[in-house]
Amino acid sequence: MAKVLIIGAGGVGGVCTHKCAQAPEVFTDIVLASRTLSKCDAIAASVKRKTGRTITTAKVDADNVPELVALIRAHKPDIVVNLALPYQDLTIMDACLETGVPYLDTANYEPLDEAKFEYKWQWAYQNRFKDAGLMALLGSGFDPGVTNVFCAYAMKHLFDEMHELDIIDCNAGDHGHPFATNFNPEINIREVTARGRYWDRGEWLETDPLSWSMMYNFPEGIGPKKCFLMYHEELESLAINIKGLRRARFWMTFSDNYLNHLRVLENVGMTSIEPVDHNGQQIVPLQFLKSVLPEPASLGGRTKGRTCIGCKMKGVKNGEVKNYFIYNICDHEACYEEVESQAISYTTGVPAMIGAMMMVTGAWKGEGVFNMEQLDPDPFMDKLNIHGLPWVVVDLDKQ
Amino acid sequence: MAKVLIIGAGGVGGVCTHKCAQAPEVFTDIVLASRTLSKCDAIAASVKRKTGRTITTAKVDADNVPELVALIRAHKPDIVVNLALPYQDLTIMDACLETGVPYLDTANYEPLDEAKFEYKWQWAYQNRFKDAGLMALLGSGFDPGVTNVFCAYAMKHLFDEMHELDIIDCNAGDHGHPFATNFNPEINIREVTARGRYWDRGEWLETDPLSWSMMYNFPEGIGPKKCFLMYHEELESLAINIKGLRRARFWMTFSDNYLNHLRVLENVGMTSIEPVDHNGQQIVPLQFLKSVLPEPASLGGRTKGRTCIGCKMKGVKNGEVKNYFIYNICDHEACYEEVESQAISYTTGVPAMIGAMMMVTGAWKGEGVFNMEQLDPDPFMDKLNIHGLPWVVVDLDKQ
Repeated sequence: MAKVLIIGAGGVGGVCTHKCAQAPEVFTDIVLASRTLSKCDAIAASVKRKTGRTITTAKVDADNVPELVALIRAHKPDIVVNLALPYQDLTIMDACLETGVPYLDTANYEPLDEAKFEYKWQWAYQNRFKDAGLMALLGSGFDPGVTNVFCAYAMKHLFDEMHELDIIDCNAGDHGHPFATNFNPEINIREVTARGRYWDRGEWLETDPLSWSMMYNFPEGIGPKKCFLMYHEELESLAINIKGLRRARFWMTFSDNYLNHLRVLENVGMTSIEPVDHNGQQIVPLQFLKSVLPEPASLGGRTKGRTCIGCKMKGVKNGEVKNYFIYNICDHEACYEEVESQAISYTTGVPAMIGAMMMVTGAWKGEGVFNMEQLDPDPFMDKLNIHGLPWVVVDLDKQ
Repeated sequence: MAKVLIIGAGGVGGVCTHKCAQAPEVFTDIVLASRTLSKCDAIAASVKRKTGRTITTAKVDADNVPELVALIRAHKPDIVVNLALPYQDLTIMDACLETGVPYLDTANYEPLDEAKFEYKWQWAYQNRFKDAGLMALLGSGFDPGVTNVFCAYAMKHLFDEMHELDIIDCNAGDHGHPFATNFNPEINIREVTARGRYWDRGEWLETDPLSWSMMYNFPEGIGPKKCFLMYHEELESLAINIKGLRRARFWMTFSDNYLNHLRVLENVGMTSIEPVDHNGQQIVPLQFLKSVLPEPASLGGRTKGRTCIGCKMKGVKNGEVKNYFIYNICDHEACYEEVESQAISYTTGVPAMIGAMMMVTGAWKGEGVFNMEQLDPDPFMDKLNIHGLPWVVVDLDKQ
């Protein structure tokens, strides 16, 4: 039925490729491209092992629009799924416009030299996609992505107005190392050490990094965990698109052990990106730390435990105050067994596939640039249950 | 009267040079040499500021015997004071033998690739120094050094037999950094992360690193501090040279903060001496950590508080059980005011100067390799009081 071109062969690209291969009734042809062909070929071999399907691989420099255009023209996909680095969103959008192919991604554009999470660069493409009669779907991962769809679902079925939103992201997994990061330590540590930011009655308020925490009692036996307020990109679009929203915050769990390690590494200067002189050579401490820490990819096979990501929402329905928690729980080992990646990549790669499925099947249609909460949540929510990310709605007032 | 050649321009080298300069009646000529001439020149400038004396500086690679020999031949010193790295003890001893010059150091030889504190490599030079009619004095710092002399003093004046010895090293100073080591971080961390080891009725018993602690109430208002059992090199010679010694242990104070930082750095692999691949280069994490941490020399001007290092001893005199604590207290800020170094360097550099003074004045004479407790403690103890490290004997049974 449809041909999908996936760009990016990291953990998320691997999961998305596996999940597309598991849905041959929709994705009849799959092309996987990245800067490093060997990574695409390794994923292709994994897909072959697990599903028996053969996919096409290709090499592309996603910073280079003419190369992207040539790749798209050569393969004529029905959709481009961008799972490359956030720095490359705009070049891939440009190539989609030039070739007339719909676009999907999971993380907003970031300039290379600044850790800045903002939709403004991609929202600026609104008229160009409208004029081309093309759809661009932004942030179709878990958070952003599924969390936005949970909000849209609550607005459609549970509330007349939503007043308070807390998105809560818990990784209760254990990789057995005293300290390791689940993705590139440089990106991870930059994000975690950034200032917090949340939406409160029409304005953005800031907090010192990791300065505000709460305990949250996670369901299904995960239990109470300490969660820290951070800025996360879906807050920007939700604050605009969810009518009546007075407060929106994002929280992530970190263990005392993780934070202690991070604090010590900061204290001694190992997280610095300023080069130091080492025997006459200039070496960046954070990059050396990356060489010492376990490879994120090596954690997949040894991570146990579950993730729980959900939206805690307060609003009104028929004049009555209501409180809900909609969440998914995902098991690291089950993910690895299914697609040879742990739950962090899985929870992002599956919604990327479902978003692509919505678009190529016509369940979601539109012209212009869309965030997830702007589209009908029901068909997406159905597919989550089918494709490995089942969700639960808890009425917190009835607990 | 005498010309001293000091090799090593770190914190201890700086103090020793200052203290030699303060004793012009003994040290008429001072030469300071190290791999980095600019460090020697900075110390020379400091000595000039504080004492008005001019010293000679020179460049030498202390790993290179012919270079050392050429340096010694050029300057014709009466003694070589080795304050370079412990890895360089043997090359400097070789050069002293070749040129016929007495030798002194403050720390025993360690192989570069193994954290091993043993006198065997240097004791193996016994016959060569004897045959050359030369004296080599090992471990003339504070611990080892003054602690050995305290034991010799106790054996001469306080006990017929010493049965139990606890050497206790407390740094109650604060440099205001979240984490820094008071001397070469590589040496410091190798020492602290090694297994504990103590002498007990004729055998060496081992403990896990930092697994055994006690509270000790330090005198003169320093108060109770947690002390951890460690191996320290003077135990090896004391167990042999102090007759009747049944148990000998070494303890050092560490704050919870220091230990936490150390634990994290160990956890992530930053204290390892196994090289890791970093962008195609082999780099030793512990050596890179040294490049990131504050220079020990930079702590001098900002360290407040005092050190207290002493020997707690139990023995018998005329058939009666006796308990003593002999200690020195040293103030970081007073040291800095005097010689522009804090107390950690001061307490090592002063005894190095006094040891050299004992040798060049003939107060201590001998042929062969000596540990401190093998020599008459009285003249050394007198000089401690005169040169900045006054000591106190407490009769613990009378408190």
